[in-house]
Amino acid sequence: MRALYFDEQPAIKEVPRPVPGPGEVVVRVHLAGICRTDLEVLKGYHGFKGIMGHEFVGKVAAPKDSPWLGRRVVGEINIGCGACDLCRRGLAGHCRQRRVLGLKDQDGAFAPYLTLPAANLHAVPPEVPEVFAVFTEPLAAALRVMEVAPVSPSARVLVVGDGPLGLQVSWVLALSGAEVHLAGHHPEHLALARPRGVATYLSADLPAGDYDTVVEASGSPAGLDLALSRVRPRGTVVMKSTYVGRYPLDPAVLVVPEVNLVGCRCGPFAGALRLLRDGRVDPRPLIDRTFPLSRGLEALAWAQRPGVLKVLIDCRESD
Amino acid sequence: MRALYFDEQPAIKEVPRPVPGPGEVVVRVHLAGICRTDLEVLKGYHGFKGIMGHEFVGKVAAPKDSPWLGRRVVGEINIGCGACDLCRRGLAGHCRQRRVLGLKDQDGAFAPYLTLPAANLHAVPPEVPEVFAVFTEPLAAALRVMEVAPVSPSARVLVVGDGPLGLQVSWVLALSGAEVHLAGHHPEHLALARPRGVATYLSADLPAGDYDTVVEASGSPAGLDLALSRVRPRGTVVMKSTYVGRYPLDPAVLVVPEVNLVGCRCGPFAGALRLLRDGRVDPRPLIDRTFPLSRGLEALAWAQRPGVLKVLIDCRESD
Repeated sequence: MRALYFDEQPAIKEVPRPVPGPGEVVVRVHLAGICRTDLEVLKGYHGFKGIMGHEFVGKVAAPKDSPWLGRRVVGEINIGCGACDLCRRGLAGHCRQRRVLGLKDQDGAFAPYLTLPAANLHAVPPEVPEVFAVFTEPLAAALRVMEVAPVSPSARVLVVGDGPLGLQVSWVLALSGAEVHLAGHHPEHLALARPRGVATYLSADLPAGDYDTVVEASGSPAGLDLALSRVRPRGTVVMKSTYVGRYPLDPAVLVVPEVNLVGCRCGPFAGALRLLRDGRVDPRPLIDRTFPLSRGLEALAWAQRPGVLKVLIDCRESD
Repeated sequence: MRALYFDEQPAIKEVPRPVPGPGEVVVRVHLAGICRTDLEVLKGYHGFKGIMGHEFVGKVAAPKDSPWLGRRVVGEINIGCGACDLCRRGLAGHCRQRRVLGLKDQDGAFAPYLTLPAANLHAVPPEVPEVFAVFTEPLAAALRVMEVAPVSPSARVLVVGDGPLGLQVSWVLALSGAEVHLAGHHPEHLALARPRGVATYLSADLPAGDYDTVVEASGSPAGLDLALSRVRPRGTVVMKSTYVGRYPLDPAVLVVPEVNLVGCRCGPFAGALRLLRDGRVDPRPLIDRTFPLSRGLEALAWAQRPGVLKVLIDCRESD
């Protein structure tokens, strides 16, 4: 099969069709999404080598005796070793030997076929269209904010960053009943949050006042500056984004106001699928363009253009 | 009265005896303690000008109609405005206009007399000796760790830093039943934790393994390096110490393992007094020397000597 492969450079490359190991299934990939982390892979993040991509929806194609055969699925991306202390404590997603779909030691989704442990799969309800289901992984990552920093319906919350992640975080936080503000730099992105009950501001125009919780989803030091300057004493700053380089942290900014700075990564697929199924989150406004897999290099280039939100790759064309 | 006053330099200086405002009392100071923060005041921290000192025990001397008159007391050090949104939300300790005893806009405890709002006072039970009671404020700050990051009796906890704060934190954490390790650089300090159920290590010799919670009480970038390298995924690092300068934080160190970094400052006096009353914490091994107030400058110099733990100032000599 031909897949979008990264080895110092991305390329469309002929690779063997994957063979499932014990407990694994083969998924025929239908749609996949390009994430900011994929763009960081292009810059050498993780030192990854293999088929790229971790956001997908597809159908189980093998093995023939799997109860999953023929079912439409999405899949969690972390694969723990199953034996270490973290896996045994229920923290398989943080296993030190974990593989991560399309990011670490595991071929990914920009391909006609991928393999994953059956334990990683979630069935997609029939009423969820493919263009919704492909957002399960990023929407779950957005929902993760509510797990690491539960937000009260009477809270004031600020989301910093109006990319796909920041927008999805603002949408799901607004569903909690909280007062949600979104700060960003792209008026056309901010416009996608306003109809969903989010008050939006250009970062430079954010009105005075502080917030119980601030979610940093801009992936920039300036975003973390803003987050730390606007969180109230004893409030929480959730860091959703990594970036290359160091942030010059003033310890007094955390210690004196007793602020909580907490990292946040992958989230609950089941909750994301429920919101997509029930129409609570319509991700379609995030889609900029869809490319066929054979034009995957163009898709990566397009995703890097300023202001582009989500680029999808349709993997159904080839076999 | 003569007090230890800071105005760019510390000096023993004649100052007027304080007059209580509405709701305030005058406390005749008996004993006071020198804290690391006082040494930072000497370096210009906070830009403080006034009578130094915030750890004390004394007896209420005025006004004559106060129900507190003649009672032995310790006092919380933060004085909120009482009117702002933070004060009204029960966060007076974080009031943006707050005064802080001996640290910000409020004369402190290295004097024969100080004033505080009566609301800040806690009665010292008669069975608590003065040399115990003077540790109420720092012991409360140590207990605050358990409020911002509750520690389970089955947790593994590391305390980094073997100064007075780190030692007290290790003592109170060990009372929880948790497995507590203390890492430091002074064998003679570490020896003060071992009899209280704490496993102690020179930092360079800390055995492999990670911790559910790490408390950074060393006040050094190297201490925070160690803390962040030894916390488990989804664990908590409590920052107890500020220091001048910036820490070069790698965002991935928090985001990928979803680590929680939380600041921690002043703590619960009532809990500290109960532990002191019941003999659960004997702070006396921390005392290095006690100086009379008239020799306050010597006391400050002594407190800055390497390896010195707690220096006390006896304020009873003069009137």
